[in-house]
Amino acid sequence: MVALLGAAMIPSALLDIADNSDQWPIFLVSSAVSILIGAGLAVLSGGAPPSTGAREAFLLTVVIWIALPLIATIPFISYGMSLTDSTFEAVSGLTTTGATVMTGLDSTPRGILLWRAILQWIGGIGIIVTAIVILPMLRVGGMQLFQIESSDMSGKFLPRITEITAQTGIVYLLISAICAIVYAACGMSAFDAIAHSMTTMSAGGYSTHDASFGYFSDTPAAYAATFFMFVAGLPFSLLTLLILHGRWRPFASDPQPRLYFWLAVGFSVVIVVWHEAVVDPPVFDHIFHGFRQALFNIISIMTGTGYASAPYDTWGSPVTVIFLAATFLGGCAGSAACGIKMFRLEISFKAVAAYAAQIVRPNRIVRVRYAGRVVSSDTLQSVMVFVFLYLATFVVASVLLSLTGMDPLSAISGAATSVSNVGPGLGPEIGPSSTFQNIPTAAKWVCLTTMLLGRLEFVAVFTLMTSRFWRG
Amino acid sequence: MVALLGAAMIPSALLDIADNSDQWPIFLVSSAVSILIGAGLAVLSGGAPPSTGAREAFLLTVVIWIALPLIATIPFISYGMSLTDSTFEAVSGLTTTGATVMTGLDSTPRGILLWRAILQWIGGIGIIVTAIVILPMLRVGGMQLFQIESSDMSGKFLPRITEITAQTGIVYLLISAICAIVYAACGMSAFDAIAHSMTTMSAGGYSTHDASFGYFSDTPAAYAATFFMFVAGLPFSLLTLLILHGRWRPFASDPQPRLYFWLAVGFSVVIVVWHEAVVDPPVFDHIFHGFRQALFNIISIMTGTGYASAPYDTWGSPVTVIFLAATFLGGCAGSAACGIKMFRLEISFKAVAAYAAQIVRPNRIVRVRYAGRVVSSDTLQSVMVFVFLYLATFVVASVLLSLTGMDPLSAISGAATSVSNVGPGLGPEIGPSSTFQNIPTAAKWVCLTTMLLGRLEFVAVFTLMTSRFWRG
Ligand SMILES: [K+]
Ligand SMILES: [K+]
Repeated sequence: MVALLGAAMIPSALLDIADNSDQWPIFLVSSAVSILIGAGLAVLSGGAPPSTGAREAFLLTVVIWIALPLIATIPFISYGMSLTDSTFEAVSGLTTTGATVMTGLDSTPRGILLWRAILQWIGGIGIIVTAIVILPMLRVGGMQLFQIESSDMSGKFLPRITEITAQTGIVYLLISAICAIVYAACGMSAFDAIAHSMTTMSAGGYSTHDASFGYFSDTPAAYAATFFMFVAGLPFSLLTLLILHGRWRPFASDPQPRLYFWLAVGFSVVIVVWHEAVVDPPVFDHIFHGFRQALFNIISIMTGTGYASAPYDTWGSPVTVIFLAATFLGGCAGSAACGIKMFRLEISFKAVAAYAAQIVRPNRIVRVRYAGRVVSSDTLQSVMVFVFLYLATFVVASVLLSLTGMDPLSAISGAATSVSNVGPGLGPEIGPSSTFQNIPTAAKWVCLTTMLLGRLEFVAVFTLMTSRFWRG
Repeated sequence: MVALLGAAMIPSALLDIADNSDQWPIFLVSSAVSILIGAGLAVLSGGAPPSTGAREAFLLTVVIWIALPLIATIPFISYGMSLTDSTFEAVSGLTTTGATVMTGLDSTPRGILLWRAILQWIGGIGIIVTAIVILPMLRVGGMQLFQIESSDMSGKFLPRITEITAQTGIVYLLISAICAIVYAACGMSAFDAIAHSMTTMSAGGYSTHDASFGYFSDTPAAYAATFFMFVAGLPFSLLTLLILHGRWRPFASDPQPRLYFWLAVGFSVVIVVWHEAVVDPPVFDHIFHGFRQALFNIISIMTGTGYASAPYDTWGSPVTVIFLAATFLGGCAGSAACGIKMFRLEISFKAVAAYAAQIVRPNRIVRVRYAGRVVSSDTLQSVMVFVFLYLATFVVASVLLSLTGMDPLSAISGAATSVSNVGPGLGPEIGPSSTFQNIPTAAKWVCLTTMLLGRLEFVAVFTLMTSRFWRG
C-alpha cells in the first residue's frame, strides 16, 4: 500500500516537470522514499502469511490509515506547508473529507493540485473496498447486512476477495473516466476535468479553484457534477453487478438509492418552496434556478463531496439548519460517501416502529425487516451502537473545537463536517466560501482526528482501545 | 384529575383576593368549571372499572396530557393572553419546561404567578409518578429496568400502586416544604420562597422575577437552589425508600446519582479552567465565584430546571456548546428532570463497549451489565430506540423552527430546550436573559408540541399513531 502511494506520486512529478515547475523533485524523492519503505515492509512481513482473525484485520486497517497519511504529507511539507497543515491536508484528502487549509488554489502548482485529487481518488477506492470487503467481515456498524450479498456474489460471480476488489476498481476507474470525459465535454480544461472527476467519484470535494464548483456555476458542468455526485453516493457493489454483469435487479430492489434520491429531492423542494414563499428579495432568479442550486449543494453535502456552487450558508436560517442536518445523512453503504448512511437511517426508524408495535402487542414478536429480510437483533444493535457512537463523537468534537476558541456555529458544523467527512462547515470561518486555514492549530488536530474516526467507522479504533483487545 | 386541577386553582383565587387584585373571579370561575367537568367525567367513566391493558394505559396518559393543559389555559386566557400564548404557558408549565412568553413578572398579579408555580408543581409530581409507576409497566425507553425494583418494593414495603403514589407524593411535599423553609431562611419573601420551591422541586424553572434566579444571584438562596435543584434530579423512588423507610442502600448502590454528580462537577471545572486560562478580561471575580456560577447553571440545565443566575450565553463559545450539550443530558430516571437521563447514557456507552468486545471475541457472549444486573437485549433496544427518537424529534423540530424564521442557534437550542423540557435556549432571542415572547406564533406551537413529545417520553404518542394500535 505504501509503495502504491509512492507510485501514485509519479504522475504529479511528471506534471510538474511538464509545467516547468520547480516542485517536481519533491514528488520524485517522496515517491522513491515511499516505494522503498513499502518494499521494505513487504519484505519484512512477506514471510509468514498473516492470520486473518478479526483482531489482525482491525490492526491492519488502523495501521494503514495512520501510515498512509504520514507518507501523503511529504509533498505538502516539501511545498513549504507546516506539519499541522500538511497533516490536515493529507488526512482530509485520504479520508475524502476535502476540508482544505490552502488558499490561492488557482495559482498553486498543478502537481500539488493533482496530488490532492489523487489522494482523494485513492482514499475513495480504499473506502469502497473497505466497505464492501472488510467491514461486513468485521460486523461493524451493521455492515454484516451486506455480507450475505457479497457471499452470494462470491458464489456466483466473484470467486475471491481479490476479484471483488479488482472488479470494483475497474468500475470505479470506468465511471471516473466517463465523468472526466463528460466534464471536458462540458467545457472544463483537461486538467480540471481529470482532477474534478477524481474528487467527484471519491466524494472528496477538493477543487482546483478557490471558488470550488462555483467556478463552474451555471455551466453544463454543474449539471454533470450533480449527476456524478449522486452516482458516487450509490452502492458500488451493486453498480459493479449492474455494469460488469448486467444484473440490474439487485440494484433496483435495494431500498437505499430510493431513500437517498427522495431525501435529496425533498430537501431541495423544501428549500425552494420556503424561498419562494418567504425570502424577499429572492436569492434565486427563478424557481428552476433555485432548485438546481439547492439540489447541487444538498447532494454535495449528503454524499459528503463538499463542492459548493454557491454560498448556501447565506441563503437563510432554514437552509443552514437543513444543511447541518444533511451533513449527517450520508449516501448508501458501499459507496465513498460518508455519514450515518441510508440503510442505518431506515433500520433505525423501522426499529422505532417495531418497538412501538411490540409494546402494544407484548405477546407477539415484531421483527424488523430490511430489503425483505429479517434484521437480526445483533445487526440492529450494531446499527444503534454506530449511530450513538457517531453522535457522541460529534458532541465531544464540538466541545473540543469550541474550547479552541471557535464560535458555536463553526465548532458544531466543523465537528459535523469532520465526523461525516463532508468538507465545508457553516458560518463565516469555515463555511463554503472559506477554508480551514485560519482555525487554531489545536482545532486542526481535533478535526483531523475526528475525520479519521468517522472514516474508520469508529468501532475499529474503539476496539483497538478496548483493553480486552490486547489481552488476546 | 381535571377536578383536582380545578381545585388547585383555589389558592390562586384566595391569594388574589388577599391582594385586592381584580383577577380573583377568574380563578374561582375556572375552578368551578374544571371541577364540574372533572366530576362529570368521573361520573361518566365511574361505572365500569377500566381494563388496564397497555393500550388503555397509553390512551389514558395521552388524553390526560392533552386535557390538563386545556384546562390550565383558562386563567391565562382570562388574564388577557392570546390563545397561543396561554397554551404555550400552560404546556410549558405542566411539562415543567418553564419556557415563558410572559414579561413584567415582577408586576404580574401574584395569583397568576402562583398559578404558574402550581402548574409546574403538579406537572412535576405527575411526571415522577408516571416515571415510577406507568412507564416501567409500558416498557418505554428502557424504563422496564426500574420495574424490578418497584415490584421488589411492592413485595416488601409498598403493597399497591396507590401506596407508591401516596408515599412518593408525601416525600415530594416534604422536600418542597423544606426547600421553601430554607429559601425563606435565606432571605426570600414567603411568597417567593413557596413559588420557587414548587418550581425547584419539579425542575420547572418558572420564576416570579424577570431576572429569574439572577434576582437572588450571590445570595445564600443561590447556594440553596443549587442543592435543591440537584436533589430534584435524583430518583424519587430511592429518595422515598431513604426518607420514609431509612433504606439508604438502594440509593447508594444506584449508579445514576454518581454519574450525574460527576458530570455536573466535571462540566463546571472545564468551564472554570477554560475561563481562567483563556478569558481576558475575566467574567468572574475569582475562581470560586466562577465555579459557583457554572455549577448553578449547569445543574439548572442538566436537571432541566432552567433557572438562570447569569447570562451564561455570553460567557464564550465553549460555554454555549457545553450548555447546548448539557441540555440533552437530563437527571436520573424517576425524578422530574428531563432529557436522555443518566441510565440511558451509561447503558448506551456500555452497549458500545460490549459490542466492540463482542467483535473482537465473536465466540463469547458479552453482556451489558447495569447496576450489577444483566441488561436484556429488549431493554437495550428500547433505550437505543428512545435515544434515536429523541434526536430525530430534535432535528425535525430544529428544521421546523428555522422555517418559521428563527436564526440557526435559536432554532437548534429552541428545539433542544423544548424536547428536553429545560426552558431557556441560547442566543439573544430565547437565551437565559430573554423569553419566548417574540418568536413567531408557528414557532410557539412547534415548541409546545415538542415539549409534550419530550415529556411523554415519545413512545406513548408514537404508539398512538401506529396504525396497528387502532386495529386492536
Ligand atoms: K468530502
Ligand atoms: K424546566
